[in-house]
Amino acid sequence: MAFVANSIITLTTDFGLADPFAGIMKGVILSVNPKAHVVDITHGVPSHDILAGSIALQSSYSYFPTGTIHVAVVDPGVGSSRRPLLAISDDYAFVGPDNGLLGRAIGSEQGSRVFQLTESDRFLKPVSQTFHGRDIFAPVAAWLSRGILPESFGTSIDDWIRLDWPTPRRVGNSLFATVLRVDRFGNLVTNISTEDLVCPTSTPQEIEIDIRGRTIRQLCRSYAEAASDEPFAIISSAGLLEIAVREASAAEFLGAGPREQLELRFF
Amino acid sequence: MAFVANSIITLTTDFGLADPFAGIMKGVILSVNPKAHVVDITHGVPSHDILAGSIALQSSYSYFPTGTIHVAVVDPGVGSSRRPLLAISDDYAFVGPDNGLLGRAIGSEQGSRVFQLTESDRFLKPVSQTFHGRDIFAPVAAWLSRGILPESFGTSIDDWIRLDWPTPRRVGNSLFATVLRVDRFGNLVTNISTEDLVCPTSTPQEIEIDIRGRTIRQLCRSYAEAASDEPFAIISSAGLLEIAVREASAAEFLGAGPREQLELRFF
Amino acid sequence: MAFVANSIITLTTDFGLADPFAGIMKGVILSVNPKAHVVDITHGVPSHDILAGSIALQSSYSYFPTGTIHVAVVDPGVGSSRRPLLAISDDYAFVGPDNGLLGRAIGSEQGSRVFQLTESDRFLKPVSQTFHGRDIFAPVAAWLSRGILPESFGTSIDDWIRLDWPTPRRVGNSLFATVLRVDRFGNLVTNISTEDLVCPTSTPQEIEIDIRGRTIRQLCRSYAEAASDEPFAIISSAGLLEIAVREASAAEFLGAGPREQLELRFF
Repeated sequence: MAFVANSIITLTTDFGLADPFAGIMKGVILSVNPKAHVVDITHGVPSHDILAGSIALQSSYSYFPTGTIHVAVVDPGVGSSRRPLLAISDDYAFVGPDNGLLGRAIGSEQGSRVFQLTESDRFLKPVSQTFHGRDIFAPVAAWLSRGILPESFGTSIDDWIRLDWPTPRRVGNSLFATVLRVDRFGNLVTNISTEDLVCPTSTPQEIEIDIRGRTIRQLCRSYAEAASDEPFAIISSAGLLEIAVREASAAEFLGAGPREQLELRFF
Repeated sequence: MAFVANSIITLTTDFGLADPFAGIMKGVILSVNPKAHVVDITHGVPSHDILAGSIALQSSYSYFPTGTIHVAVVDPGVGSSRRPLLAISDDYAFVGPDNGLLGRAIGSEQGSRVFQLTESDRFLKPVSQTFHGRDIFAPVAAWLSRGILPESFGTSIDDWIRLDWPTPRRVGNSLFATVLRVDRFGNLVTNISTEDLVCPTSTPQEIEIDIRGRTIRQLCRSYAEAASDEPFAIISSAGLLEIAVREASAAEFLGAGPREQLELRFF
Repeated sequence: MAFVANSIITLTTDFGLADPFAGIMKGVILSVNPKAHVVDITHGVPSHDILAGSIALQSSYSYFPTGTIHVAVVDPGVGSSRRPLLAISDDYAFVGPDNGLLGRAIGSEQGSRVFQLTESDRFLKPVSQTFHGRDIFAPVAAWLSRGILPESFGTSIDDWIRLDWPTPRRVGNSLFATVLRVDRFGNLVTNISTEDLVCPTSTPQEIEIDIRGRTIRQLCRSYAEAASDEPFAIISSAGLLEIAVREASAAEFLGAGPREQLELRFF
């Protein structure tokens, strides 16, 4: 099955919304394809945080219709020798810098092919050294949405950068894991997925989680079933284990944030 | 007159914009109806604050064309027994949790009918216990925008939850009122409406307002006509009495915020 | 060449995204023209900061397709005698208050004509004294996007307010300049443009910049080529000289913000 673009282009960046950067990208896209439908995934990725941008993209992209073009820009190496990429799978296209940001999404997809963007006719001129979101990624996505063939944007490559995704380490009956991010509600999203929660010994059992000197034993199915003022574990909507406090911030309650370590024990 | 959907779907949530939750809802909507036009009212409702979400929806929804579908998600009870709702009036549809969030809008409209969403064929599967915005409310709104009949989404109910809206208390020539919210400019938006400002005695007179130990006597027609460095009262664009300071924050000036009490006297 | 509207309407305001003001403007626009395509440039202009709003508009508007209508609202004088404006150039339309906000964009464009908005049939009634974004600017933009002739919205005027744009002062081999704003990454955007960087004496030479008691001598072409932990100068994507620190905030590093003075010397 070959990728066929629809007119939807999503944006995932660390540009924030106070500056006009995201608006400028939309202007560039609409100048190339006035029929494009630009949708923000988020512009609130922490500055220069490639892992956080990758998580945002990974948790969102597959909810869009097949044929959607996902542009992601978290790009501390803009203007250096880092390459600009276009990746195409059976269902989606991804456009952004070759710094790992797109790596996990490309790896999750079937039939991915990756191109280094070299065909500068498709860029906005002159190309700056500081804003490839505007000058390269936005116009390439817009031309792609008009049906230009992926092959015509550059050369096929295989050595694009894979992201060093932090997977939990299994030791005996324990998982040593980490907090990936804190969401708007103060929930601590860990790198433990539902697959990781299959117990290594015979029968499913209880779990307990050590984090910041506390031990959490409650695994709830919904936020509402939890007791108040007490951290609990829950499987988030993205399929990752989360530490939460009912109608409050677990991050504040525990004094924990991204990269906090935790140990989950099956017993 | 019966509700006929246009393709506009608005979103009012407490999801913020740093996480991809709002973007994911848009992806789900566009997957069901690629022609849907999704418009953000706000994603900045304070976390879990049902009253604040209700105020945002109430002050906005009627500015949209008839046939617009308004989705609102402030949903601390997600995954519990709280019901998911679809309400239809002559002019608008409202989709969201049955926790009071939609109550005031439904009550403001003519010809409202309310349905509990039970037809799970219209949901995204599997339905999580933590993100009904994605799994129930977004797809239902999208199907509705494609012309699916409201009746086909569930069972008609009458006992949906009304919001306990804080109305001012009238005692003699006084109104005892409260600050509903603080807007971006630091204006204190009260629950006193223009109708409340009709004086209980014969002729229209002066008013004065006590708040945080200060007495405010100036009722201005525009921000620009006010003196500097002095709080004044003004009727906001939503028809509610506001306490403001010219080109400054009344919230900071007075050290006041949501739920601050005030007394307005006619004399 | 005469202005012909496309269906794109951009918004640049100081309304923020926590309140529903921007959403309400979109509702009003779509009620007049359901085919309008509304794009946010930014709603994060600092409250009442006309210069900052003007900079956001100026750095963005020309990236949109010709025929785009740009609405800008930073409007501390709303409800006073300040006039509402529509300006038309060969390529773009601008709608907003006559307080300087649109001045630089109008002045940058060819064939500009400016109208005071007087034709109240095109306004939302009743017109409030507090929210002309909703009552005047949004509906005028929407009617204009439907092809209504610019002349029919009001009377032609010439005495619209020019913005007092802070240009650098040249003294001998020095430029005395100022920081216009701080962007999301903490970069200090100055008012020195690439044209200002032409050296007044014969041959191109080194520059050095004094700011906050430090002297900066490095002028980099990209963020990535800079040394860490050291402020450097760079030409931003908007063609303005910026002070930056690699993957860090120059604003924090130097303790500097908007209106900070600096001296650039050619030697």
